[in-house]
Amino acid sequence: MSDWIAIDWGTSNLRVWLVSESGEVRDHRLSDKGMGQLEPAGFEPALNALIDDWLSEGEVTQAVACGMVGARKGWIEAPYAAVPCKPEQTDGVQAPVTDPRLSVTILPGLSQITPSANVMRGEETQIAGYLAANPRFDGVICMPGTHTKWVNVSAGKVDSFQTCMTGELFALLSKQSVLRHSLSGDGWSDDAFDAALSECLTRPASFGARLFELRAADLLQGQAAADAKARLSGMLIGLELASAKAYWLGQQVVLIGDARLSALYQKGLGAQGMAATLADATAMTLAGLGAAYKYQTGGTE
Amino acid sequence: MSDWIAIDWGTSNLRVWLVSESGEVRDHRLSDKGMGQLEPAGFEPALNALIDDWLSEGEVTQAVACGMVGARKGWIEAPYAAVPCKPEQTDGVQAPVTDPRLSVTILPGLSQITPSANVMRGEETQIAGYLAANPRFDGVICMPGTHTKWVNVSAGKVDSFQTCMTGELFALLSKQSVLRHSLSGDGWSDDAFDAALSECLTRPASFGARLFELRAADLLQGQAAADAKARLSGMLIGLELASAKAYWLGQQVVLIGDARLSALYQKGLGAQGMAATLADATAMTLAGLGAAYKYQTGGTE
Repeated sequence: MSDWIAIDWGTSNLRVWLVSESGEVRDHRLSDKGMGQLEPAGFEPALNALIDDWLSEGEVTQAVACGMVGARKGWIEAPYAAVPCKPEQTDGVQAPVTDPRLSVTILPGLSQITPSANVMRGEETQIAGYLAANPRFDGVICMPGTHTKWVNVSAGKVDSFQTCMTGELFALLSKQSVLRHSLSGDGWSDDAFDAALSECLTRPASFGARLFELRAADLLQGQAAADAKARLSGMLIGLELASAKAYWLGQQVVLIGDARLSALYQKGLGAQGMAATLADATAMTLAGLGAAYKYQTGGTE
Repeated sequence: MSDWIAIDWGTSNLRVWLVSESGEVRDHRLSDKGMGQLEPAGFEPALNALIDDWLSEGEVTQAVACGMVGARKGWIEAPYAAVPCKPEQTDGVQAPVTDPRLSVTILPGLSQITPSANVMRGEETQIAGYLAANPRFDGVICMPGTHTKWVNVSAGKVDSFQTCMTGELFALLSKQSVLRHSLSGDGWSDDAFDAALSECLTRPASFGARLFELRAADLLQGQAAADAKARLSGMLIGLELASAKAYWLGQQVVLIGDARLSALYQKGLGAQGMAATLADATAMTLAGLGAAYKYQTGGTE
């Protein structure tokens, strides 16, 4: 049986795994050649630099890729699959590979028109990975990150989803806004996080009024940066939980994402009486690429 | 009677007026030497470059300055005056001027500790200007801008205030976030603005969910940048009006700020049945500096 290559190619990073037909990871590598810094002609060399010695003359090794590599400004566009759909059973696009030893299928992201326009690219593969191990799961998957996704899953399909720009807002406000003067430095306050999350979840309008207070409390009262940072994070996640209430209230919620960030969401949901479970993001990506590989190569589930 | 000099020195600009004792503007000038780009030693030369020929040997011309020039990182710190207070009757600080022909008083901003930490610097002078012409005003002054201020005024005093970072959020999101790809270009849609404002005012939590849709609606449906920009503005002002409802609901509201931006706030408040009036920002600044000059030089109102 031949090995295949799993590729997770996001905006900032490229990760590859050499996987046996039985699913065993034989090797894995990482580079910083994310899609964000590459022109179309740069993708194949960036990939080859990592996997050249995994390829064999006279054989074609199959690879499956997910993530921003398939965006309009990526290697080649893999048009979105519309929900509802099974996230691992979508039509991939062949990348324009010149190396005769390699064939790369790029998986599409998912799109939604109603009730409102939305897209994801990369997260659908993590969902597929979770469903591969939990085929009867019926509930909500939340993927915290730069653009957090809230996803309704039922009968093996993604039914609908919502995006919150919570991570990007945190980065913009803490690094580029006037608040940056009051947020630099390490440290963290659980109490400040909890209080801010609770207030913005209960009264989301207060977000508008409370934001500048992070600066004023520093100027007037010398508020510690650790407190301010935890308050900002709590405010943003509180506003997000308020906006995603229809997703998590009374639902079984699984969190897939950075462990520290997911723990914050788990804490916030826990304060509302919701016990969310955590799943490892890298493991879900790899399992999802495996499920897609099976589907792309004609295997059955 | 001698002339005096009115100075409005903000983060980005320096504006000066030569004013007669009777209040007539004899001359006015502008430079881009805002406080944001100056070290302490750079303030006097920047000012002198504009007003040197207004000064006379053997005489000391009085000047009164408001704005970020008095911030901790400005020319010299003018410590905040605590509310409640009359905005024109605060203790100014003498700037360290070396030119014997000039004396500059820098006005303080205002600070608030309860119900929540807040500061303003520069806006208090516009409030003083409005009160100089409307001494019996009792109501709310809203000053739209980078950091919009909502101010309760009663019996000639500023009682309390709130800040919303609406202008800064609009700039960050439209120029530095992923949304920038979908917001570039001119144009405007009143309908998109109205609908977005109404939704975020009624359901502020929806802000969290709707933001990323500006990007998705472009990718999937080719939404025009003019629509997206108006929607973003409407969402942010709607969230702000929701957070400031205790200020404007059932109150007499005066808007002081950029004319186009103030008109948007007026429209939003109008949709809620509130008829806000507009006042010219530059005229208010000048009138406020005049009221402070009278107070600083011992005149009575």
